[in-house]
Amino acid sequence: MNDDPRGATAPPPPGPRNGPAVSRPEFDALFERVRAWGRWTPADRGAWNRVTADHVLRATALVRSGTVVPMARPWDTAPAPDNAKPALHYMSDLGDTETPEPSTYKDFVGADYHGKGVSHLDALSHIAYRGRLYEGGAARESTGAGGARFGSVSALGPLVTKGVLLDLPAVLGVPWLEPGQAVHGMDVVTAERALATRIDEGDAVLLRTGRFRRRRERGAWDLDAASAGLHVDALPLLAERGVALLGGDGDSDVRPSPVEGLRSPVHTLAIAAMGVPLLDNLDLEALSAACAEAGRYEFLLVAAPLNVPGGTGSPVNPVAVL
Amino acid sequence: MNDDPRGATAPPPPGPRNGPAVSRPEFDALFERVRAWGRWTPADRGAWNRVTADHVLRATALVRSGTVVPMARPWDTAPAPDNAKPALHYMSDLGDTETPEPSTYKDFVGADYHGKGVSHLDALSHIAYRGRLYEGGAARESTGAGGARFGSVSALGPLVTKGVLLDLPAVLGVPWLEPGQAVHGMDVVTAERALATRIDEGDAVLLRTGRFRRRRERGAWDLDAASAGLHVDALPLLAERGVALLGGDGDSDVRPSPVEGLRSPVHTLAIAAMGVPLLDNLDLEALSAACAEAGRYEFLLVAAPLNVPGGTGSPVNPVAVL
Amino acid sequence: MNDDPRGATAPPPPGPRNGPAVSRPEFDALFERVRAWGRWTPADRGAWNRVTADHVLRATALVRSGTVVPMARPWDTAPAPDNAKPALHYMSDLGDTETPEPSTYKDFVGADYHGKGVSHLDALSHIAYRGRLYEGGAARESTGAGGARFGSVSALGPLVTKGVLLDLPAVLGVPWLEPGQAVHGMDVVTAERALATRIDEGDAVLLRTGRFRRRRERGAWDLDAASAGLHVDALPLLAERGVALLGGDGDSDVRPSPVEGLRSPVHTLAIAAMGVPLLDNLDLEALSAACAEAGRYEFLLVAAPLNVPGGTGSPVNPVAVL
Amino acid sequence: MNDDPRGATAPPPPGPRNGPAVSRPEFDALFERVRAWGRWTPADRGAWNRVTADHVLRATALVRSGTVVPMARPWDTAPAPDNAKPALHYMSDLGDTETPEPSTYKDFVGADYHGKGVSHLDALSHIAYRGRLYEGGAARESTGAGGARFGSVSALGPLVTKGVLLDLPAVLGVPWLEPGQAVHGMDVVTAERALATRIDEGDAVLLRTGRFRRRRERGAWDLDAASAGLHVDALPLLAERGVALLGGDGDSDVRPSPVEGLRSPVHTLAIAAMGVPLLDNLDLEALSAACAEAGRYEFLLVAAPLNVPGGTGSPVNPVAVL
Repeated sequence: MNDDPRGATAPPPPGPRNGPAVSRPEFDALFERVRAWGRWTPADRGAWNRVTADHVLRATALVRSGTVVPMARPWDTAPAPDNAKPALHYMSDLGDTETPEPSTYKDFVGADYHGKGVSHLDALSHIAYRGRLYEGGAARESTGAGGARFGSVSALGPLVTKGVLLDLPAVLGVPWLEPGQAVHGMDVVTAERALATRIDEGDAVLLRTGRFRRRRERGAWDLDAASAGLHVDALPLLAERGVALLGGDGDSDVRPSPVEGLRSPVHTLAIAAMGVPLLDNLDLEALSAACAEAGRYEFLLVAAPLNVPGGTGSPVNPVAVL
Repeated sequence: MNDDPRGATAPPPPGPRNGPAVSRPEFDALFERVRAWGRWTPADRGAWNRVTADHVLRATALVRSGTVVPMARPWDTAPAPDNAKPALHYMSDLGDTETPEPSTYKDFVGADYHGKGVSHLDALSHIAYRGRLYEGGAARESTGAGGARFGSVSALGPLVTKGVLLDLPAVLGVPWLEPGQAVHGMDVVTAERALATRIDEGDAVLLRTGRFRRRRERGAWDLDAASAGLHVDALPLLAERGVALLGGDGDSDVRPSPVEGLRSPVHTLAIAAMGVPLLDNLDLEALSAACAEAGRYEFLLVAAPLNVPGGTGSPVNPVAVL
Repeated sequence: MNDDPRGATAPPPPGPRNGPAVSRPEFDALFERVRAWGRWTPADRGAWNRVTADHVLRATALVRSGTVVPMARPWDTAPAPDNAKPALHYMSDLGDTETPEPSTYKDFVGADYHGKGVSHLDALSHIAYRGRLYEGGAARESTGAGGARFGSVSALGPLVTKGVLLDLPAVLGVPWLEPGQAVHGMDVVTAERALATRIDEGDAVLLRTGRFRRRRERGAWDLDAASAGLHVDALPLLAERGVALLGGDGDSDVRPSPVEGLRSPVHTLAIAAMGVPLLDNLDLEALSAACAEAGRYEFLLVAAPLNVPGGTGSPVNPVAVL
Repeated sequence: MNDDPRGATAPPPPGPRNGPAVSRPEFDALFERVRAWGRWTPADRGAWNRVTADHVLRATALVRSGTVVPMARPWDTAPAPDNAKPALHYMSDLGDTETPEPSTYKDFVGADYHGKGVSHLDALSHIAYRGRLYEGGAARESTGAGGARFGSVSALGPLVTKGVLLDLPAVLGVPWLEPGQAVHGMDVVTAERALATRIDEGDAVLLRTGRFRRRRERGAWDLDAASAGLHVDALPLLAERGVALLGGDGDSDVRPSPVEGLRSPVHTLAIAAMGVPLLDNLDLEALSAACAEAGRYEFLLVAAPLNVPGGTGSPVNPVAVL
């Protein structure tokens, strides 16, 4: 057991469970297959347009026990192999600035939040493939110092929908998936059955790999070198089901990438082709325990990103209500 | 009509509607009257401990139409009379940093969020009166460069409860309350009746003064000089009702302060005496319209602050579901 | 007398002293006249290439009394009419973070330093005219999220040369130049004579308008609305003399701009045409007093910007040694 | 050769060259021996008070060739074993923000600069021993959210004095000192003789260990684990000589610390006892080459920190003029 995530053990070398390899033409065919452009208004809300008022009503009706479970990991100011750009947190008032009474305590928070350290949402402006954002616009033309003019996080607003936890370690009876292990479309179907749930249109799908349990027990490691996540072969299934949001305790992509010449193929398919925002680096350990206790892996999910005009995403603390 | 909030008109001079004046001994008596220390575990969750699983269930059962309304105003990087510490938003990747595909777009967000410019939550470590935080600990001893050791926003976690919008301009048939106008306990009762709602234990009470409508039509002004908000005489009522959370489109306090030698008496009573966190600077214009359309001023409210250990609060985008 | 720069008086309306007006074709002819492209290697050191080792030797030989005078105004975290983007300063360690002994005290500094609030250097990547940087490259192609690939402040390095203080208020026997008052080429020649100095090749020219004396006595004002500074008709003289660096207590440009459709014509001529970096917002009050006492307006000047690769400038504390 | 500092080799285990060990009572006796409290006005300029106008004149008279050598390493935004808190650099304007002409390019810089990654100055408020700052004041009482009230970097201002480069690798004929190797008082004397220089009152002493040559050839390593630097036995010599400033390419302290229960004993003696500010993390490779070429290890040194009221130090780009 290693309390200091910086005293990290190396991840195991990715084995055959990472593949199969996918060529670039195969990937491009996948991209075309799942591409959902020109379908919704407003376009930069992408697949969140699937979540109608009816979906919201059905999601709130899922609540049984009133248990509330947050998913944001602590704002992490300590550098680590999986926290290359530590978040900032400084006190700006320690009760010694303003007078008279009351004394006030204030702080500054800041983060270059994309990466592996901060629980955050990726908006549709975060990823471009072959120079094009979701819906086909040229990324270079729609982004500047003021941020994104298409696909901003403020165009998304909050999401209230049904959440489904794909708790793979629970399904497989292991403490965690090993870094580098791919989750395939077939595994998703198996998990649905084992967890007695079903991914429907407009749902938010959260993949638990057990990253944060492994991190606590084995120390932090470089997730870019090896992390469990989805293989691209799972995306057609998720596209058919019509998911609105995809997320997990990693960043959804299995790494190393099985796709030739492409770092983040699941990001590319989900965001740029399907218009599906991603939730990265969620701590799903408490949610896993709550679902196990409830015997249900479905719940009301609320994700309310900060309202940053031009933002490519936002730090966020998604909430499950069981 | 003034599109540029910096080209601000001065607020009208606060008239007799701001008072009555309250002496410091009278305030201290009020403080004792509403003080709720030693009542809950964990103590630094304060009045949020009132929100049990049953409250959550009843709150989710309030949802009728599935309409989702966010309350965060846009992340504001422009200085203005009511935005003295502009928020930061910088692009950190414009698709030109990483290779190979996909290209990625990233940004940095940061804010010294207390003040009048950012929609945010005040945790219980934000305010101390006579050197003492809620529950009586010495503020100086419990705060350092690493933040608050008592009353951190991460001790609060998210809140899911019934929200009540006290839409004063709707009640009074005016576009907004004038800066400096006080809302009294009697006004709260009147508003409840007019809006056919009732503030119960564990509820979140949101006061709309029409600030952002006035800002859009008249320009921004210095809210520290004059802003509509609660007079301290409303706090005993809110304490009796057992509110969990108080918020609004200002910062809850009427300004100038009617209390001798005290800048923020409502902050002081709510946070330091009652253990009630505050939500400041919410844009409630859309919620007002949605409530008017629905003919109901009650809803499911979800507020999920960032999980900042030691944080004295957090930027937040609270969500109403009607 | 007004101690609070925020309680600012409005600047006087710019009178006839601001002109004469300059048409855009006249400006473009000026641009061509002073343009110094293709002249130096490395190109992005621009006119600093004029400062040879001989100049350095002559500059150090100017020192007579050993008096050292810094020019940076205090790092200003308070918003004001001339400080729209307040600098950041937060304590990151208050002796309570590390153990064992010694205890350490640390802080974070940050600034979006261009503007009117921070004493800073403008590198050659700061300004483009008609889409072109100094030396003719397309600005859009040479700048990205990583910063400037041409004209970075790290390409400049430090400058050690002769400094000349053009102390206009001293010459004119006034406490300061009124906001909006233009300094013409003829005024520069008059000042040289009155101050018994001469601007030579490789020199750094500092224009004192008395801004910070006026700020302390009258309060801060919006320098974009009106500030004393150079009229573009002074630039041919400075170009002929071969200045290496231009700076002052404002940002060198008289405002309002006398040039049709151009906000910052002196910036444009100095940086984009002549390759002359600028020093903005220096507090020259102490230097003025020291020069008056010494009876000399020439000195050794050292300006050592931070070594920021890709930076468009840098906060800086230039030093005069008399 | 390793171009990527992150692909770091481990430092060699510190050998016998790190010692001898020093007990805490021995250290406290050293502290008393070199303590220089109550000696200068203003007190928080400490040993910089030694640098009189005469020293400045003598230092400027040292200039022979007019060669200017900066010492700041590049502003480093990449995490590395010796850059745990990467500096921030973001573009805030890419020519797309303001209109009309000219287009402007702007950026934000920020750093929590203490540590091993940023070239910076330590002011006298940076270090306290047994709760006391230099001159004996209680550190806790003199520091708050607004920064240091005693020993601020703005109390120091700039320093212009004679610099002496103790180029140990040049003296020893090695490419660098191995991490962990201590430099003793005797080594300082040997270096003076070998380099034909002498440390006098008011001088700035810079110790080159060859860190950045080693970093470029072998990769970055954790300097807290092992770094070459001064053993505390060198401090009495430096105190006797009356140095004003101490600095180097590390942080002056040999690590691991040879003093029982004390992380940074040289920091403690220099700053808290002697009132001598420190310069950390200077890139001295170019200065080493320039001194070797000139055959002289003395020069004019100018260090001009940012003018941060309450700052515990400042990023800085010190300049040598040979």
